[in-house]
Amino acid sequence: MPRVRRKPWTKDELLKYEDDLVIVSPEKYKGRWKEVFKKDKIHIELGTGKGQFVTTLAEQNKDIGYIGADRVKEVLYETLRKTLSKELDNMKVLWFDVNKIDEAFDEDELDRIYINFCDPWPKRRHRKRRLTHRGFLEKYRKILVKNGEIHLKTDSEILFEFTLNEMLQFGFKLEDISLNLYRDGDPGTIKTEYEEKFIEEGKPIYRLRAINVK
Amino acid sequence: MPRVRRKPWTKDELLKYEDDLVIVSPEKYKGRWKEVFKKDKIHIELGTGKGQFVTTLAEQNKDIGYIGADRVKEVLYETLRKTLSKELDNMKVLWFDVNKIDEAFDEDELDRIYINFCDPWPKRRHRKRRLTHRGFLEKYRKILVKNGEIHLKTDSEILFEFTLNEMLQFGFKLEDISLNLYRDGDPGTIKTEYEEKFIEEGKPIYRLRAINVK
Repeated sequence: MPRVRRKPWTKDELLKYEDDLVIVSPEKYKGRWKEVFKKDKIHIELGTGKGQFVTTLAEQNKDIGYIGADRVKEVLYETLRKTLSKELDNMKVLWFDVNKIDEAFDEDELDRIYINFCDPWPKRRHRKRRLTHRGFLEKYRKILVKNGEIHLKTDSEILFEFTLNEMLQFGFKLEDISLNLYRDGDPGTIKTEYEEKFIEEGKPIYRLRAINVK
Repeated sequence: MPRVRRKPWTKDELLKYEDDLVIVSPEKYKGRWKEVFKKDKIHIELGTGKGQFVTTLAEQNKDIGYIGADRVKEVLYETLRKTLSKELDNMKVLWFDVNKIDEAFDEDELDRIYINFCDPWPKRRHRKRRLTHRGFLEKYRKILVKNGEIHLKTDSEILFEFTLNEMLQFGFKLEDISLNLYRDGDPGTIKTEYEEKFIEEGKPIYRLRAINVK
């Protein structure tokens, strides 16, 4: 994951919208997210990049509440800007550390988690930092409804291989596994900024859909 | 799969050992393979190539009965020659069409199936010919014991992707999935002739272990 240039001023920009479009203390909303959004379904993207993916989804699915979560304020600021420019009323930006995801959401509170091109942490000794390590999966299983889904895309062979094995071992059913999503052309999926770059570079994109079989 | 040069004379060479080392009418032994081998476990390789893999296994595992099956007599002849030269008494060569596998074996008669670098039939309209199509999986599920395993290796992205999805959908639990078996060096597995060639060419080898969860 290329380093993001530091922009200290983005913190204040985010905080201008605290408890409105920007959530900094999510534990305040634990168990109340559907109320906050006045929607029946809540989807979250863990790691928003510059927000193209999640804001496009929010634009196209007005009946769902979307949360774009990241711990890097600079990218979150871009997500906030897109949320404002698209005038989205079904979108929140969440500035937090995914390790605390079960402090932010209650059991069965989320319907879908998107994980797109997250940091693969390729070294074996760093595997606990991978967002699909069993430690995270355990938390996702709790906060996702029964048959809730995780949609994952990555360009990392190591991360995808690791994820296939971890998810199958820790309570997820897998479907729609692709080892090269754009092998036969573009299936018209919503893409992240990284994804467009990788497709241009001819890198294979891996994709799976994991179902929370409680 | 490169075309095998035709050697008509290999038919007679095989038939010299019929109902000894070479089986041509397997239905005669359906339900009696353990008796034939006087072993408690029977493993089969579907598609032997020149027999390096299955005869090496047989050499190293004298407590197991091994069957090397193929429909191409020329490669089966090579497998027979290795069986003879290695003086293996726990090995049979089976000349048959895998489509008839449930005519050759009874329910719960096999403990493991090896599928190594089988023809990937990459065109979508040919997918029913792939040895991991649900039509075959249904037969394997019957003839494999509960928790019996399929060990598959391939260099084909298309076949491996197809196999992951088919097996997960049709009653197999998957473990030890690898998208690049030799990524971190050689884990000391027994290799087929093709496999050695692909490793030299730097091609990634995909591997999975499927468990028959009856």
